[in-house]
Amino acid sequence: MKYKKLEENIPYDGSPIEPFWAFKEHKLKGSSIVSWIGPMDIKPEELIDYEDVGLEIKSDKMVHFIIEHFDVQPADIKTCYHRQRLFVMIVKDALGELGIKTSRKGDDLYFNNKKLSVSIATCSNSSMKIHFGMNVVDKGTPEDIETIGLLECKNDLDNENISALIDNICESYINEIESIEEDITKTKVF
Amino acid sequence: MKYKKLEENIPYDGSPIEPFWAFKEHKLKGSSIVSWIGPMDIKPEELIDYEDVGLEIKSDKMVHFIIEHFDVQPADIKTCYHRQRLFVMIVKDALGELGIKTSRKGDDLYFNNKKLSVSIATCSNSSMKIHFGMNVVDKGTPEDIETIGLLECKNDLDNENISALIDNICESYINEIESIEEDITKTKVF
Amino acid sequence: MKYKKLEENIPYDGSPIEPFWAFKEHKLKGSSIVSWIGPMDIKPEELIDYEDVGLEIKSDKMVHFIIEHFDVQPADIKTCYHRQRLFVMIVKDALGELGIKTSRKGDDLYFNNKKLSVSIATCSNSSMKIHFGMNVVDKGTPEDIETIGLLECKNDLDNENISALIDNICESYINEIESIEEDITKTKVF
Amino acid sequence: MKYKKLEENIPYDGSPIEPFWAFKEHKLKGSSIVSWIGPMDIKPEELIDYEDVGLEIKSDKMVHFIIEHFDVQPADIKTCYHRQRLFVMIVKDALGELGIKTSRKGDDLYFNNKKLSVSIATCSNSSMKIHFGMNVVDKGTPEDIETIGLLECKNDLDNENISALIDNICESYINEIESIEEDITKTKVF
Amino acid sequence: MKYKKLEENIPYDGSPIEPFWAFKEHKLKGSSIVSWIGPMDIKPEELIDYEDVGLEIKSDKMVHFIIEHFDVQPADIKTCYHRQRLFVMIVKDALGELGIKTSRKGDDLYFNNKKLSVSIATCSNSSMKIHFGMNVVDKGTPEDIETIGLLECKNDLDNENISALIDNICESYINEIESIEEDITKTKVF
Amino acid sequence: MKYKKLEENIPYDGSPIEPFWAFKEHKLKGSSIVSWIGPMDIKPEELIDYEDVGLEIKSDKMVHFIIEHFDVQPADIKTCYHRQRLFVMIVKDALGELGIKTSRKGDDLYFNNKKLSVSIATCSNSSMKIHFGMNVVDKGTPEDIETIGLLECKNDLDNENISALIDNICESYINEIESIEEDITKTKVF
Repeated sequence: MKYKKLEENIPYDGSPIEPFWAFKEHKLKGSSIVSWIGPMDIKPEELIDYEDVGLEIKSDKMVHFIIEHFDVQPADIKTCYHRQRLFVMIVKDALGELGIKTSRKGDDLYFNNKKLSVSIATCSNSSMKIHFGMNVVDKGTPEDIETIGLLECKNDLDNENISALIDNICESYINEIESIEEDITKTKVF
Repeated sequence: MKYKKLEENIPYDGSPIEPFWAFKEHKLKGSSIVSWIGPMDIKPEELIDYEDVGLEIKSDKMVHFIIEHFDVQPADIKTCYHRQRLFVMIVKDALGELGIKTSRKGDDLYFNNKKLSVSIATCSNSSMKIHFGMNVVDKGTPEDIETIGLLECKNDLDNENISALIDNICESYINEIESIEEDITKTKVF
Repeated sequence: MKYKKLEENIPYDGSPIEPFWAFKEHKLKGSSIVSWIGPMDIKPEELIDYEDVGLEIKSDKMVHFIIEHFDVQPADIKTCYHRQRLFVMIVKDALGELGIKTSRKGDDLYFNNKKLSVSIATCSNSSMKIHFGMNVVDKGTPEDIETIGLLECKNDLDNENISALIDNICESYINEIESIEEDITKTKVF
Repeated sequence: MKYKKLEENIPYDGSPIEPFWAFKEHKLKGSSIVSWIGPMDIKPEELIDYEDVGLEIKSDKMVHFIIEHFDVQPADIKTCYHRQRLFVMIVKDALGELGIKTSRKGDDLYFNNKKLSVSIATCSNSSMKIHFGMNVVDKGTPEDIETIGLLECKNDLDNENISALIDNICESYINEIESIEEDITKTKVF
Repeated sequence: MKYKKLEENIPYDGSPIEPFWAFKEHKLKGSSIVSWIGPMDIKPEELIDYEDVGLEIKSDKMVHFIIEHFDVQPADIKTCYHRQRLFVMIVKDALGELGIKTSRKGDDLYFNNKKLSVSIATCSNSSMKIHFGMNVVDKGTPEDIETIGLLECKNDLDNENISALIDNICESYINEIESIEEDITKTKVF
Repeated sequence: MKYKKLEENIPYDGSPIEPFWAFKEHKLKGSSIVSWIGPMDIKPEELIDYEDVGLEIKSDKMVHFIIEHFDVQPADIKTCYHRQRLFVMIVKDALGELGIKTSRKGDDLYFNNKKLSVSIATCSNSSMKIHFGMNVVDKGTPEDIETIGLLECKNDLDNENISALIDNICESYINEIESIEEDITKTKVF
């Protein structure tokens, strides 16, 4: 599984959730996790969550993660949501290590009951996709919901801290998936 | 998914990891999580982890959790290990809420670099099984490995605290699996 | 699995066979069966059966059933057709209990060699869909095929009888799927 | 799918439910349905239904059907139970055509609230197996349950009628499975 | 699995790789292999290989094979690529029998390091599709790549030889798939 | 996928076809191919092919290959037989490069209509296994079948040639499986 960090300020319009985005846009072949910092404003036609139809999903500055897996064929949304939960829990743990104690409800992270993140999972027949976005600052987010950004959670975070956080999260996730694969190869089944 | 707490002091010899144990021994039909407190001494023929062959896996007092899932057909070990990881992370979170800060490596929890837990996952063609055991006290564990028990992590824990911890873990896990099922039903796929 | 009966006279244009229709149109989340009485006139672009291309599929008054299942991931058309057959057989039995003796050929029901019903099954990666429609009266059906309606099969059927028939069918189907799930949990596999 | 009718009086001890029985005992390769008339007395170690443990499953004269499917890989118990239900419904219909009106509860057929049949489904990783047995006469059945045989349902049935019934059931089932396969090849999916 | 040879000179524009093409265009129901000789010029919107985007895929005269399989449900791209490889190896063997010694790299055949063939595999949820095209003459192929045709490999090939080659390839492939199915039914699994 | 060549003269008694043999006997974790030269005499209880029951499967000196795959979960015998065929075709090609022109029938290779090899595939729920054995010399093989060994096919083969042949086969197979995985990640699906 490959990990690539993009330059800053690429806006997230929802299209990176489409299958093969990493290959078509960034020449990344195979399972991958791509991360970058940029604004988010999801185009209505890119909405994946039918409950979000009609809602604004936006933020001025977020850390974005786009994951694509090709190891399960055919891909299925159920396995994908399991991995999404693993990812969110890994983010929660990584934040905890920085002293940012969040609570989790499904695939959302909250700090002091304020929403810190958004996430969705989807799939095609041949790959599973996950997007996870976390506000860096609480700006440009929808007005009808209380939100917060990393910098409001812990105001001494600098760019380097955030960059290290991103690396930590991505590496932990890649290791997790690999460790699951490895466990399979030593386990008796009935 | 059903949750049942057994009376104390049933020894864990490895046999509960076998498919249909919950139904055959405790009349629990369908997906379930069973928990109890008791010693552990796994019989060699019940070993599931081929890396554990020849090792002693034992402890005088543990909290045991046995999970069985019938919702994925055919059952597969890969999905099962994803769920095991979710379970271990939920335990880690629940311990964190009690002020017990553990670290996780795969499916093992550590406190101050001492091993607090054991876990395995397996499956048959029709069900997925997970065992997770956590030392209550650091007694009767293998000598060649540094271990610790919940009471050594936090010495003011009483029976009631541990009972509440068990309930919290089981309910969180059941909710997690249900929330994944629900997310599937609102997600566009490609 | 949820069951919802809609008010009368919603026309069936083929669009309810699309995945997530029950959620998008009727806020029904998860596996469901929706039923109502209304006319049918399938738009060519909504045709699912490639053998029907170019044919008129229409009727002035039908009982419609739309089923969606999310329990098998990834969803597959083979399982879906097995369920469709179970559904049609349940309808046949329910009609038999009213004294309407039909014969079945694949997914079609006939009374005195006249076609009483239409049905199709399809799926996306994440859900299985079934439509079953049964003429209430023999009006507005294609001219090139001999058709019949429930009221021509048994002329003393009133609205209440038909409403009870619909409930009976839906409940029987839901029970059937649940009983299959339950049987899995008590069955030894090799 | 092959159909073979065995000579009479082979006792059913439960072993035919094991995978590859048709090939090992009767040189039938591939998916098949085997039928014969004989007594039943299931050896405890051949019990498949965990709810039957400790019960007597026996009858002096039954029509037996053993089905094995290799078309779904890996085989799964869920698909197998769907097919079992289709089979039982086909039996019910075939009996109805002879004027024997039964009621069905899951995989059991009843006549006047008396149990006419037994059935189980199971699978290995590579094949699905179904047994269905129907009393010919109400003799030698367990005492703690009210049973009935075909000859008590309709006393003018002769050997020829029963033989034709068996052929009818087997051919209908084979046709059903083939018609499902065929429907797949003409159906648009999303 | 059905085999149909079409009349000559139907151009290949990429659309035959779409699911259900054999049924919609040639009334072939079920798994099939269709073959014909004709030019190729793939329309950009019909490109399946994301690495080919922007490239010309064309040739004046090719032998085309279009395969569709419905036996695996849900269909998956991984199984499909295994079958594509089997097909290409069968072509290689059949050419070898004619004295045309090619080398293979993935799904491409080369003669004297010149590209003889193109191939792609894809799938929908319900069927697997494979296209394999082999130049008959080295005309009209892209300029940036060294290509060759069957007639340049062996200049005494006439239409009859090529027709026999096509039959040989298609029959060998159909036999191969059938022999795999048959092997399953005689193999013990664990 | 790992490749390990064992020292010579380990007898093949059938047990290496069992799942996890590579890990339990040779500490090879994960998907692997193991090769060695040694005699073969399969114990009756290790027979995998039900058609071989009662037959002698033996040879004094063979090249053995044991493959195990963990990448498909749950493992299935159908995928496994596809890979077995790919493997046999790769062997056939590698022999051809040495000037040994064989013919293939299913999973058997023949030279001048004499049987050169044996092969079987099987699986458990979590891994796929393949054995392929090829006579080095035509000694100790069953009397009721005409067999041949590599040295009879080409009498100037020395140990080094055979060792290089083994390496070539194993590397080609590993590359093939990897190239299939890679192709998946660049292919549009419907």
